[in-house]
Amino acid sequence: MGSFWIWWCLAILINSSLCLAQNRHFYKWEVEYMYWSPDCIEGVVMAINGQFPGPTIRARAGDKVHIELTNKLHTEGVVIHWHGISQKGTPWADGTASISQCVINPGETFVYRFQLDKAGTYFYHGHYGMQRSAGLYGSLIVDVAKGEKEPFHYDGEFNLLLSDWWHTSVHEQGVGLYSKPFRWIGEPKSLLINGRGQYNCSLAAHYSSNSSTGPCKLTGAEQCAPQVLRVLPNKTYRIRVASTTALASLNLAIGNHKMVVVEADGNYVQPFAVDELDIYSGETYSVLLTTNQQPSNNYWVSTSVRGREPHTPQGLAILNYLPTTASKIPVSPPPVAPLWNNYTHSKLFTSKIVALMGSPRPPPTYYRRIVLLNTQNYIKGYKKWAINNISLTLPSTPYLGSIKYGLNSAFDQTSPPEYYPMDYNVMVQAPNQNATYGSGVYMLELNSTVDLILQNANALDKNVSEIHPWHLHGHNFWVLGYGEGKFTVKDERSFNLKNPPLRNTAVIFPYGWTALRFVADNPGVWAFHCHIEPHLHMGMGVVLAEGVHLVGKIPNEALTCGLTAKMFLNNNNH
Amino acid sequence: MGSFWIWWCLAILINSSLCLAQNRHFYKWEVEYMYWSPDCIEGVVMAINGQFPGPTIRARAGDKVHIELTNKLHTEGVVIHWHGISQKGTPWADGTASISQCVINPGETFVYRFQLDKAGTYFYHGHYGMQRSAGLYGSLIVDVAKGEKEPFHYDGEFNLLLSDWWHTSVHEQGVGLYSKPFRWIGEPKSLLINGRGQYNCSLAAHYSSNSSTGPCKLTGAEQCAPQVLRVLPNKTYRIRVASTTALASLNLAIGNHKMVVVEADGNYVQPFAVDELDIYSGETYSVLLTTNQQPSNNYWVSTSVRGREPHTPQGLAILNYLPTTASKIPVSPPPVAPLWNNYTHSKLFTSKIVALMGSPRPPPTYYRRIVLLNTQNYIKGYKKWAINNISLTLPSTPYLGSIKYGLNSAFDQTSPPEYYPMDYNVMVQAPNQNATYGSGVYMLELNSTVDLILQNANALDKNVSEIHPWHLHGHNFWVLGYGEGKFTVKDERSFNLKNPPLRNTAVIFPYGWTALRFVADNPGVWAFHCHIEPHLHMGMGVVLAEGVHLVGKIPNEALTCGLTAKMFLNNNNH
Repeated sequence: MGSFWIWWCLAILINSSLCLAQNRHFYKWEVEYMYWSPDCIEGVVMAINGQFPGPTIRARAGDKVHIELTNKLHTEGVVIHWHGISQKGTPWADGTASISQCVINPGETFVYRFQLDKAGTYFYHGHYGMQRSAGLYGSLIVDVAKGEKEPFHYDGEFNLLLSDWWHTSVHEQGVGLYSKPFRWIGEPKSLLINGRGQYNCSLAAHYSSNSSTGPCKLTGAEQCAPQVLRVLPNKTYRIRVASTTALASLNLAIGNHKMVVVEADGNYVQPFAVDELDIYSGETYSVLLTTNQQPSNNYWVSTSVRGREPHTPQGLAILNYLPTTASKIPVSPPPVAPLWNNYTHSKLFTSKIVALMGSPRPPPTYYRRIVLLNTQNYIKGYKKWAINNISLTLPSTPYLGSIKYGLNSAFDQTSPPEYYPMDYNVMVQAPNQNATYGSGVYMLELNSTVDLILQNANALDKNVSEIHPWHLHGHNFWVLGYGEGKFTVKDERSFNLKNPPLRNTAVIFPYGWTALRFVADNPGVWAFHCHIEPHLHMGMGVVLAEGVHLVGKIPNEALTCGLTAKMFLNNNNH
Repeated sequence: MGSFWIWWCLAILINSSLCLAQNRHFYKWEVEYMYWSPDCIEGVVMAINGQFPGPTIRARAGDKVHIELTNKLHTEGVVIHWHGISQKGTPWADGTASISQCVINPGETFVYRFQLDKAGTYFYHGHYGMQRSAGLYGSLIVDVAKGEKEPFHYDGEFNLLLSDWWHTSVHEQGVGLYSKPFRWIGEPKSLLINGRGQYNCSLAAHYSSNSSTGPCKLTGAEQCAPQVLRVLPNKTYRIRVASTTALASLNLAIGNHKMVVVEADGNYVQPFAVDELDIYSGETYSVLLTTNQQPSNNYWVSTSVRGREPHTPQGLAILNYLPTTASKIPVSPPPVAPLWNNYTHSKLFTSKIVALMGSPRPPPTYYRRIVLLNTQNYIKGYKKWAINNISLTLPSTPYLGSIKYGLNSAFDQTSPPEYYPMDYNVMVQAPNQNATYGSGVYMLELNSTVDLILQNANALDKNVSEIHPWHLHGHNFWVLGYGEGKFTVKDERSFNLKNPPLRNTAVIFPYGWTALRFVADNPGVWAFHCHIEPHLHMGMGVVLAEGVHLVGKIPNEALTCGLTAKMFLNNNNH
């Protein structure tokens, strides 16, 4: 019956991008570059089926999706990662180059088949080179299973995918990052909301007479016209927010309105109200907004840079109370974000996020603890980011295949360090700033409980410590706590074991630590990395593996490169 | 003995890029992007071992080369084609993506092993996407075998690799070419000689008071300082010239000096003297220059655009008579090239090129004649170039493997047309400008004599017909003749069967035809295409194959993609 529907579906909708039969969703996607004006300045973006951002996937928990992804680029490989989806039983569909699969080469097709295990707000994005920065991203929304209910009520919903944008190509950005002397990508030129921003003009110019940019003259039909959220008065809306920024930590606010946070990274949280919220790259939230303000006005939705001295104008969208026209300028100027370096404010916000009552609790103890020191370093004079002084260099043979087939020469067989030297002072510049390249794997015992302690430190320059939002593939983790300075065993006492939030992304604050706990219950190989694109590209990540011998048949297409391909070809006497 | 030397050589020179043991040459190359200022404007170039242009390969006829090429790009594949090398017995080493091999993916290595069969002036370049335009090229010089002599004398030699340069990346150029509306790459910003040109200043500014660009202030140490050819008076020098331009047809001249043409594309020609010579992309020449001019002066070496209305300043190098200082500005301004559209002049030059007496003659008759109509077309509104109304779309599985292993679904099994409609008027715009995509192959009988008639036509616009220099892989061909208008059987009478030059590249002039003959004696699959990079990228080429069943064991690395990889993986029960 199921397969009948699939075939019927394929037969009649071969040219359509979406085919829905029972609980299977079929998508046929083509990735290519195209000219686009995300912020009113024309440039090249990565598009899916001619759309930027890519099409939204929407399905229910338990549904299966099949995404037939064809690479229409001319010389570049491509993969897509489904951020927040556990990929239980399908680790080859995680879409991470060098980890879960061989990249899809130009002209070739890979079918991502996986199950959406859990309702929530997710997104997808490129996970090869810096293709996410190039615009390869879109939303992935999972509704509760049929017959089930969300633990909160809402009358309608909106989806905000937040990003940042540059005017130099990621190809050139990449060359600069790998150059000696190092060339940093600089601050984003603009912040985008659903792929829309304004660079050369300001939607909010008329509030201040000393604005350096003039007002935007937009009709609303432009590619860079702001997103309009059309609402009715006295209703409750769920606003789903996801940040896929390459660099920027953001603060989101909606003028005159409170937001009630109800979901983080696909996990329900104990609802709490805020005026604005911080969101780091890789995180998602759902907030409820009640349209209880003056309905003859419109209001600004704004994103602002946090954690770095902002040189990028706010990203803006419009909350439009119907039947008021969307073109009516809000009475008040866009919300003013907290000061970029007010970390006390940021920490207060994170402390409010606790799991909804009844959520699964963490195991009370850990089996293995891995402490990960986050630093900037040099290798042969090249600037790098590193963990425990090892800058991750991804191998050309993906780990999933090389581990499963015992191809030991594919990557460093030495396990990376579990901690950093006792005498390392995280508050000052390291006396030795050199690191080494590495491709080793933390091999975890299946079903064991693992604590990951993210330890921040001083960066290369004096009095600088960066924000790093870390994302774990294949799992959620409990965020047990945040702290200042160097994590010590005594800090365990402050762990929240009662109602820590489950998440897939958590931030470390400057000079601080963050403690995470998860159960290694998903056979496969999983990246755990800073979600800031250039940081990851420059080595800021680690690789975890568990139960790879239990992984089922990996699709051939995921193995046709490097040493796995070589092995299979050598087995043939051709 | 040979292998002893190889091992000795590998062992002690593991970090050196060149190891010479007997007649084997070992190179270890890494391809990456780097910042460079080819024309005094900084941009990104493709480099080999940090060099732009890439290192020169120099060896003797009969020598074997092993080039271990590692792809250090982040998301792009790479291959290198050895332009003019026949690859007899090693068709998998021809370095053409989708034809002879799977591309080398990031982090992976492919070893090009082949024999240099014939002395001459050659070059190498990227043959994937438009990577040649991005700067992936270098010289390949083959001296006569030990104990043999060139049929002319010279006291010293120089090597000029000519190219053209843009300030937009080939990534962006490629997006424009594949866009609707079409965006042309425009004229080159500068002409380079050995990778050196000047964009924002002129070496020759002081000859004309109305020059729009100021004089260059160069010390000679800059990346964009002109190449200096240091000569002694009253000597004879061999100047080897190769054009790897993306677009420009060039005219080369050396102020006050005659040049005697002695070699074309690795084949000796009957020597003849010229004041300047035309050189099209893909062609090489050797000229002899006698330093018989006033030795206290220096002289300009210049390249100028032919065949398109020039919007690019001349490329300049300096012929420096020692002991005169190289910084002494030549007395006379750079040579003035013939008018860009003086095709009579160009045709006169080609008519002078005949084979050196004693060169192999062509078979008197052909077994098969293929007529190739060169046009611009539209496909679904996208601008394309096409041959017999088919725009070549390269498949994701390289032909060499798919033909050898009978993987018929890898490409169109219908042979492309042998001719174009009888009633097609090549002198005017086509009434139907539409073409179709195709990936079919001309399957040639092994050792048969094939005539290729390149037929030019009116392009899309009225009164426009372009120049197309066509390059054949794996073979030389005899250039039997050039003619005006539509080729007809009667034109055979004008064929030069007595001393036609052997070449691997030949041009078709606007509204004209060019007749080529070759013997299909090289088992493999071979591209035959317009050497203008965007034209090829947009479909202007055909694929020829002969005796593929006789091809020996293709290295696994050349097969690990597409349907060949799939076949080998399916054969494994993993």
